[in-house]
Amino acid sequence: MTRKLFTIGPVEMYEYTKGRPMGPLPYFRTDEFSDIYFECAERLRRLTGAPGDAHVYLLTCSGTGAMEAVVGGCFAGADRLLVVDGGGFGHRFAELAAHHGVAHEPVRLSFGEGLDYGAVDEALRGAPNAEAFTGMLVNIHETTTGQLYDKDMFAWFCREYGLYLVYDAIGSFLADPLDFEKDGADAFIISSQKALALPPGLAAVILSDRLYKKVVEQDIRPFSLYFDFRDAESNAARGQTPFTPAIGAILALHERLARLEEEGGAEASAARAKALAEDFRARIRGLAEKGLIALPSYRLSNACTPLVFPKGGAKEAYKKLAQRGLWLNPNGGELADTVLRVGHLGNLTPADNQTLAEALSELL
Amino acid sequence: MTRKLFTIGPVEMYEYTKGRPMGPLPYFRTDEFSDIYFECAERLRRLTGAPGDAHVYLLTCSGTGAMEAVVGGCFAGADRLLVVDGGGFGHRFAELAAHHGVAHEPVRLSFGEGLDYGAVDEALRGAPNAEAFTGMLVNIHETTTGQLYDKDMFAWFCREYGLYLVYDAIGSFLADPLDFEKDGADAFIISSQKALALPPGLAAVILSDRLYKKVVEQDIRPFSLYFDFRDAESNAARGQTPFTPAIGAILALHERLARLEEEGGAEASAARAKALAEDFRARIRGLAEKGLIALPSYRLSNACTPLVFPKGGAKEAYKKLAQRGLWLNPNGGELADTVLRVGHLGNLTPADNQTLAEALSELL
Repeated sequence: MTRKLFTIGPVEMYEYTKGRPMGPLPYFRTDEFSDIYFECAERLRRLTGAPGDAHVYLLTCSGTGAMEAVVGGCFAGADRLLVVDGGGFGHRFAELAAHHGVAHEPVRLSFGEGLDYGAVDEALRGAPNAEAFTGMLVNIHETTTGQLYDKDMFAWFCREYGLYLVYDAIGSFLADPLDFEKDGADAFIISSQKALALPPGLAAVILSDRLYKKVVEQDIRPFSLYFDFRDAESNAARGQTPFTPAIGAILALHERLARLEEEGGAEASAARAKALAEDFRARIRGLAEKGLIALPSYRLSNACTPLVFPKGGAKEAYKKLAQRGLWLNPNGGELADTVLRVGHLGNLTPADNQTLAEALSELL
Repeated sequence: MTRKLFTIGPVEMYEYTKGRPMGPLPYFRTDEFSDIYFECAERLRRLTGAPGDAHVYLLTCSGTGAMEAVVGGCFAGADRLLVVDGGGFGHRFAELAAHHGVAHEPVRLSFGEGLDYGAVDEALRGAPNAEAFTGMLVNIHETTTGQLYDKDMFAWFCREYGLYLVYDAIGSFLADPLDFEKDGADAFIISSQKALALPPGLAAVILSDRLYKKVVEQDIRPFSLYFDFRDAESNAARGQTPFTPAIGAILALHERLARLEEEGGAEASAARAKALAEDFRARIRGLAEKGLIALPSYRLSNACTPLVFPKGGAKEAYKKLAQRGLWLNPNGGELADTVLRVGHLGNLTPADNQTLAEALSELL
């Protein structure tokens, strides 16, 4: 049975990644490895539109580790953050802020609810001591709901109020159009197992120079020596990491980034995800018209399509599809029986979409 | 040119690891993956001699991340630790304790100095408020100096004083004889890229049930949500990790642990490292007798042989050997020009030792 990952991480790898042998790996405290680090950093800057003075750190951890590194490493008691808590990952941002003693106000969304200007405006102006806000934490694409937020809106608010803007780009990088500078970002958080289609276990954090300077000038105490950005910075300056990194994943990243640039860069990659997402959504239009499946009405990321089962049955569908080798992303909590998510990342094709759409038709 | 890693991480991988393709990787929130997690945990318990109620966590991070998880996650302001600070990794333990606000007294050793009963006894009894000690942090093998400490001594002290005993087993697991229960351990910290000969980026922590209970009963506040043992525990109970783990590394670990047990387990692995270390030490005896190289006089781990260059020249030797594809571990700081370390971990043979010994003879 062929197994196809429509999950949103890990995803189907490209042949050149999948076929890479695990070894041999080189010793890494060398100029040769430093060059690889520098090239990865430079390519990540180009692919995200980050300026030349942006700081790029490769962290050996999951995406959540990188989220925590940024929230706990760049902000402290004197800060106050607006957090878009529109699903599991927005909620994680809020939990991280709470855990690290950073004051924060959530903009909460229930499933199905789109985020608009008014809600953010109200949260920013309506909060007591509104002038104390210093930053905003946003998942560009809230992966648990599929919602793609309006980056222009956040950029506008953050400019207007002078806030640092932290973007979790994990579910959006290479799937949706992004531009670090145009989007007014101070941080992009990236993880290896989404559209990069690499094994999980490696993350990247890109910090604007002004956010890095905040860390240094405000002398933010690192909550962890493992996630200490100042240590990461002094090592990154020589193309190294403070501790032994996931060398194999970095070498695979190095190849993947080069291929991405050869193939037209981030725009071409997002266009590809868009085409694949639109192809899938067209294929299930019939099921939607029959009311067997619904899609949320907000703007969706190209990274995934959330399938809403109006009468429940998502769990059963997940199992039956998995038995056919078609792996979708189940949701947790309240949505466990009403939502399944279909990823459009990595090495998937319209033919794969067709297989899945047909399987869904048969099931429903 | 053949490249041979005599470094102590990464090390030469076995063919079955090296040849593993990076993908495809499965979706991991499944019973199938949980079984793999459970089997890894069970095999790690057996290979370390940990009891059935010991807690095993797989962490996606470097060995230092796992050290921090234990120091910052199991101890707090009410604790007081004795830390054997006999080199870079002992010093890291001390820095981690300091960073997390845990009182600690170091037993400091300079390079070349062996640790004996008297020094530990004095540190324990001589410290003001000596009765307040609650734990001890020890690198079984201080990888930066090659010293293998006397585990029986620590077990005795910790029993005598009722201390929790945390062992960094990173440089010793599968290279030296270890036994979690007999060694009186409350924690073993393990990393993937040493004698496991896997890619770096995965670590394991084994906690005794009494140390895990301490965390819960004393309600130790996690310094990080990424490294929260209670979250790890509730996930491990179902064979899962709180966040997306390094799936590929876990699958490789799963295979490696099975092979290790087939090949006679931890004892056979340590015997193999011992034979390889003794073979290498015999081959350089001539250089030592001529005074061109010296070995420290303390007990050495089987994991590596520190080569002391009495008149300096370690840096130059490192470069020249690297040009021949022979990678040794340089030391940092004061020892940079006087010490190089030769690893005996992973897929190395006496023939590799011969190549290196001959290259050293030519150089010196």
